[in-house]
Amino acid sequence: MPVNRQWLLARRPSGLVSADDFRWVESPVPVAGEGDVLVRNLYLSCDPTQRGWMAADSYLPAVKIGDVMRSFAVGEVVESRDPRFQPKELVQGLFGWQDYALARPGTPSAPSRIAPGVPVETAMGALGLTGQTAYFGLLDVGKPKPGETVVVSGAAGATGSAVGQIAKIKGCRAVGIAGGEAKCRYLLELGFDAAIDYKSEDVAKRLRATCPSGVDIYFDNVGGPVLDAALENLAMRGRVVLCGAISRYNDSIPTAGPRNYLSLLVRRGRMEGFIVLDYFPRSAEAVEALSGWVREGKLKERFDVQHGLENAPGALARLFKGENQGKQLIRIADPTGAPRGEG
Amino acid sequence: MPVNRQWLLARRPSGLVSADDFRWVESPVPVAGEGDVLVRNLYLSCDPTQRGWMAADSYLPAVKIGDVMRSFAVGEVVESRDPRFQPKELVQGLFGWQDYALARPGTPSAPSRIAPGVPVETAMGALGLTGQTAYFGLLDVGKPKPGETVVVSGAAGATGSAVGQIAKIKGCRAVGIAGGEAKCRYLLELGFDAAIDYKSEDVAKRLRATCPSGVDIYFDNVGGPVLDAALENLAMRGRVVLCGAISRYNDSIPTAGPRNYLSLLVRRGRMEGFIVLDYFPRSAEAVEALSGWVREGKLKERFDVQHGLENAPGALARLFKGENQGKQLIRIADPTGAPRGEG
Repeated sequence: MPVNRQWLLARRPSGLVSADDFRWVESPVPVAGEGDVLVRNLYLSCDPTQRGWMAADSYLPAVKIGDVMRSFAVGEVVESRDPRFQPKELVQGLFGWQDYALARPGTPSAPSRIAPGVPVETAMGALGLTGQTAYFGLLDVGKPKPGETVVVSGAAGATGSAVGQIAKIKGCRAVGIAGGEAKCRYLLELGFDAAIDYKSEDVAKRLRATCPSGVDIYFDNVGGPVLDAALENLAMRGRVVLCGAISRYNDSIPTAGPRNYLSLLVRRGRMEGFIVLDYFPRSAEAVEALSGWVREGKLKERFDVQHGLENAPGALARLFKGENQGKQLIRIADPTGAPRGEG
Repeated sequence: MPVNRQWLLARRPSGLVSADDFRWVESPVPVAGEGDVLVRNLYLSCDPTQRGWMAADSYLPAVKIGDVMRSFAVGEVVESRDPRFQPKELVQGLFGWQDYALARPGTPSAPSRIAPGVPVETAMGALGLTGQTAYFGLLDVGKPKPGETVVVSGAAGATGSAVGQIAKIKGCRAVGIAGGEAKCRYLLELGFDAAIDYKSEDVAKRLRATCPSGVDIYFDNVGGPVLDAALENLAMRGRVVLCGAISRYNDSIPTAGPRNYLSLLVRRGRMEGFIVLDYFPRSAEAVEALSGWVREGKLKERFDVQHGLENAPGALARLFKGENQGKQLIRIADPTGAPRGEG
């Protein structure tokens, strides 16, 4: 008889996330009630924002202690008591760190169908939350104009690499900031105009050199000293798009804010935050554009796949140690379904 | 034979501005060349931004060591070699800390005529840079909607008090933050809905109490912990208008930035800076609106007039010690001109 292996949140994290923040349990597989879709998870998505969900209420309520750890996932429908979903279909949603999830349309765990012909990884990456974060954050919040210079941090990560490539598609210069020579080499392969290694280079100085007319848009995934370096180099009427602050997520007490924030005053700049979930009503628009760019080879991505539900805490921690090479996924099961049709 | 008494900048300031930052000299009165207007200063305006002009290049180049200290002023035309200006007319501009200035149209020291019937003080306050800063910063950058809550710091100051009153005119709630009981009482007399004394109250806690649905617009004149308190209480899609940061201007090394800046992310907020000089092409629009509100008694102001050019450094320092009660002016001479016509 199958069991439902689960990682529950055991405590609020302090410092780097670790297996001790979670508790492993084996529960019965849940039973689908009227309107429910029972999903068997195949892949879990690792996203920096999960550290925030563990810690405190923010744009979503914090995960309760003792609840299954919240996570985006892709799974296969096992049983459906909603006529719109059929067994063996692939769906994605907030299914959590567990083998089986009850997904119910209209709730936070609602399933959404993966379009035929789209690889599961792509659905979780370039066409998923990651790609949509880059799409809406850069285009809607940053509002790039052709010829402008777009700088992105965490540039070798899933969102950052999409931001730089979309900037190029829109006729901008793209400069990426990442940690280490290998990641910087990857950025140049993707077509970035320049790459800055924050581990071995003076970021502010390199920004001055690579952005001689200043930074028109800075898409921030990291916060900390890199944000200050970008503010220092902001162009007149520059925009800072706040997407995340991975350098701060493991601090127990919030560290200092950006001491150069008055650049926003002197250069008439704007710093603005966004949450991709707000854009769900427009996600079809993003998926259409993004899938076109993927087909044309203009938007490339890579995946870093770890294996096994038992390794979920360690896979999540890879993000904060900068170890992941591209979109971090955890493969926890193989599909039982028939080969998928081409869309 | 008249002399031109002048305060020259002697050094870059460190800490609070003091008389030692300047050098007093007596020079010959300059001679007007072709196109020049020779102006005799009557009033000097004290503005927090002058501390920045002394220190470093920013939105204007720093005042050079040995140059006359830059200042807005109102003066009387003594001699005009520009046919558009006549002797005894009142004009305003960047005439500096001196008795006599050469003002030349089309340069940074260009004179602009004060409309007949407008008191000199009002021309320097509600209708001048101060009022226009409030007008464009609140309306153009903050974009208030009726029913929203506008919070302003430095609220008893010249710009802050105008921000709160314009917020009320536009159908918003206005909450002011100022230092001391007398200033807070003044805010309530002006029609603010609430006043917070940052010297004796917990600003974050009082913002929670006075802004139960959050801060829709925070107009920041001070920076520092008050900015953090406002960010902590930001409403969804709240806007922070960066006008100044008087709490930081006397720091030699920039202090910490706003540690709560990630509120902008979680609450989808925006923090944006502006410089009123950018709005000069639209100043007629502001003067028309502001003078209407002054006439109707909806926009009140008060002045804090110190006397004597020799006291200019001390008068400027009053701003940073929070000693000024309203718009800080320095009266340095009486007009010789005929009584001014009513406009």
